[in-house]
Amino acid sequence: MGEQAMTGTAYFDPLETQAPQQREERLLAALPRQVAHARERTAAYAQLLRDVEPGEVTSRTALSRLPVVRKHELMVAQQARRATDPFGGFAAIGWRAGGALGPARRVFQSPGGVYEPEGQASDYWRTARAIFAAGFRAGDLVHNSFSYHLTPAGAIMESGAHAVGCTVFPAGVGNTELQLQALVDLQADGYIGTPSFLRILVEKAESAHIRPGRLAKALVSGEAFPRPLHAWLRERGIEALQCYATADLGLIAYETAAREGLVLDEGVLVEIVRPGTGEPVPDGEVGEVVVTTFNPDYPLVRFGTGDLSALLPGTCPTGRTNARIKGWMGRADDAVKVRGMFVHPLHVADVLRRHPGLARARLLVSGEMANDQLTLEVEREDTGGDTELAARLADSMRDVTRLRADIRLCAVGALPADGKVIEDRRRLD
Amino acid sequence: MGEQAMTGTAYFDPLETQAPQQREERLLAALPRQVAHARERTAAYAQLLRDVEPGEVTSRTALSRLPVVRKHELMVAQQARRATDPFGGFAAIGWRAGGALGPARRVFQSPGGVYEPEGQASDYWRTARAIFAAGFRAGDLVHNSFSYHLTPAGAIMESGAHAVGCTVFPAGVGNTELQLQALVDLQADGYIGTPSFLRILVEKAESAHIRPGRLAKALVSGEAFPRPLHAWLRERGIEALQCYATADLGLIAYETAAREGLVLDEGVLVEIVRPGTGEPVPDGEVGEVVVTTFNPDYPLVRFGTGDLSALLPGTCPTGRTNARIKGWMGRADDAVKVRGMFVHPLHVADVLRRHPGLARARLLVSGEMANDQLTLEVEREDTGGDTELAARLADSMRDVTRLRADIRLCAVGALPADGKVIEDRRRLD
Repeated sequence: MGEQAMTGTAYFDPLETQAPQQREERLLAALPRQVAHARERTAAYAQLLRDVEPGEVTSRTALSRLPVVRKHELMVAQQARRATDPFGGFAAIGWRAGGALGPARRVFQSPGGVYEPEGQASDYWRTARAIFAAGFRAGDLVHNSFSYHLTPAGAIMESGAHAVGCTVFPAGVGNTELQLQALVDLQADGYIGTPSFLRILVEKAESAHIRPGRLAKALVSGEAFPRPLHAWLRERGIEALQCYATADLGLIAYETAAREGLVLDEGVLVEIVRPGTGEPVPDGEVGEVVVTTFNPDYPLVRFGTGDLSALLPGTCPTGRTNARIKGWMGRADDAVKVRGMFVHPLHVADVLRRHPGLARARLLVSGEMANDQLTLEVEREDTGGDTELAARLADSMRDVTRLRADIRLCAVGALPADGKVIEDRRRLD
Repeated sequence: MGEQAMTGTAYFDPLETQAPQQREERLLAALPRQVAHARERTAAYAQLLRDVEPGEVTSRTALSRLPVVRKHELMVAQQARRATDPFGGFAAIGWRAGGALGPARRVFQSPGGVYEPEGQASDYWRTARAIFAAGFRAGDLVHNSFSYHLTPAGAIMESGAHAVGCTVFPAGVGNTELQLQALVDLQADGYIGTPSFLRILVEKAESAHIRPGRLAKALVSGEAFPRPLHAWLRERGIEALQCYATADLGLIAYETAAREGLVLDEGVLVEIVRPGTGEPVPDGEVGEVVVTTFNPDYPLVRFGTGDLSALLPGTCPTGRTNARIKGWMGRADDAVKVRGMFVHPLHVADVLRRHPGLARARLLVSGEMANDQLTLEVEREDTGGDTELAARLADSMRDVTRLRADIRLCAVGALPADGKVIEDRRRLD
């Protein structure tokens, strides 16, 4: 498979090899329609985008002026509207009288009590493309070790496998002995699940001196996939690739046989923004992955994943022409607790917004527990009014976070471009 | 709902109220086609029915001459053919090159290591009829607490709920706290799962002083559903009905609002046979439920469920015209271990077959463990040659089971008509 893909003969569809300019035009042409759809069919976007003229959202610059919706805002909206709409006004499907576009196929509950809808469309989460890129083909038997219960992980992958034309063994999580028996009895062609559980299955098979069926390929997701584990699996005849998907958005990016970053899915428009803001970062800089989907049922526009990544220059050696991102580089939206108060990257962005002309800021949390020190490091162009600027920034910090912070001003470019807005250096032991 | 159904205005389809004679003609007309299909499309029936002329199987009498396939035979066939066909030659679907009719959608593993295929048809297991009879309607949200992992229970019910037009929350088993939270947050209209887990959910809600959403109806299955539990749930505003379905056959029979036995599904031909044999018992007598399905993908002809039940006279007060069976009355195929050897109802049938003219037999196992006593009780018409008959029967018992048994001869009708072929009266403590 790897070789086939490398020589360009195996793509899921012609979209993967279209000219980048053509792809961009197609995405930007679809954008005003999707913005209009979200505004007309969901209560949340009717409110969020009430001042937006959809017909004018025809460029990435125009898109970057729309608000970013972050997971915690979705959760707050869901909780506020729970009695009437468990999706918080963001979905165009539902049940009973809910959902402008008709009935959802399933509803899922993710950790933290957030709910996601699944529509009636085949390959609703668009994972078929990633499954195909990992070498799966029609007629294969897929051993799916993601959970089908409560969360959508199992369904996200199963619907894609069905779209590829595979038969699925819904193994779910746990029951390692029975899963191993199924691998031996059914001779599955490939595995889909977390990389750590695949390792457990293979180790268990080795210790029992049995071969886990004819497993030769795998699509892994849901957690980090360390390079040494990839090599360990390859030594055992299993070529594993990863993909990046979420319960809200479906597939965002996927690995190919080239294993150089993750190629973006064809059904999303991805931006990398400065965490806590809606501003795109320069190409190559680390930032938060913000995704606009073209899913009519759950039309998330500028949804902030909270995940950090960065665009990778160049194109994929397999011939896929879409942009690539590096793998998962951490969480952007991790709030920290300082002297009993939560401080969020949004707070830092808020402080910065009150002082035009500043480039970037980073909040350092240091000291021992119960004796926390806050230092706001800020890049500024002009060193002229430093003393006054520092005093005003300290005031803004107090207004926004109710916490006292030292201010350290530095030159533009002095702060690391790693996407981190809050760095917690406290000793926890 | 109950009232609606009682007044005859709410049926899943017109099949439920057709004249019984019309149904019987339709089933018998489909029978030769299905026998021919099974013989042509599956390796197992090509062998089992090699001497059968499908065109002649146009009556229940003709059907009763075909072999009954029992679960343990299916398991043996699956194990024998595992490397090439995990379904043991009984399925017309598969994956890779397997399956005359094309790819299976899923494959499942049931306890004991038996595998079941799922085809591409919507409502593959035909449970929509039972779900509808339990009061579920399009637009409802179903809380499905059957497992989706390994076994098909979750999928059996979910596919039926989708066919009714419901949205499904795939809760699965366990995670009681999260399931309760989902019931409160999503306000599911009804529950599908085991009755015992529904009780756990309701009790947990009561002890936390919360109402489990708006649950007002339930379809329960997978275990016995005692009358007191039905009453307990009704007191709490939940009307629960049960159905009888298996992983191999799908829906066999379902309860209606009348709660008088279980009405047979429209997609199966059901016989009640003397356990261990293929002979239908007289109407009303207890025997093993043997089912012929019209599922083209997994065309089980005369599949012995191992479950005991009996036909119920009369018709359902809801206006459904199909025959009814009593609920689950035990297992017919429970082998017992006597002095280290397994004795199966098949053995008893085999002994009886060697002595033409005998009516029924029953094997009593008594005594303390390690000092087992076997008594074969046999009904016979003619008391003339009792001594000689008893000696011959004891010889046959030794030939077939390798065990010594006392023989007790009795009048025809003296043995209880409860379907039991082996009765184990040993003290186990």
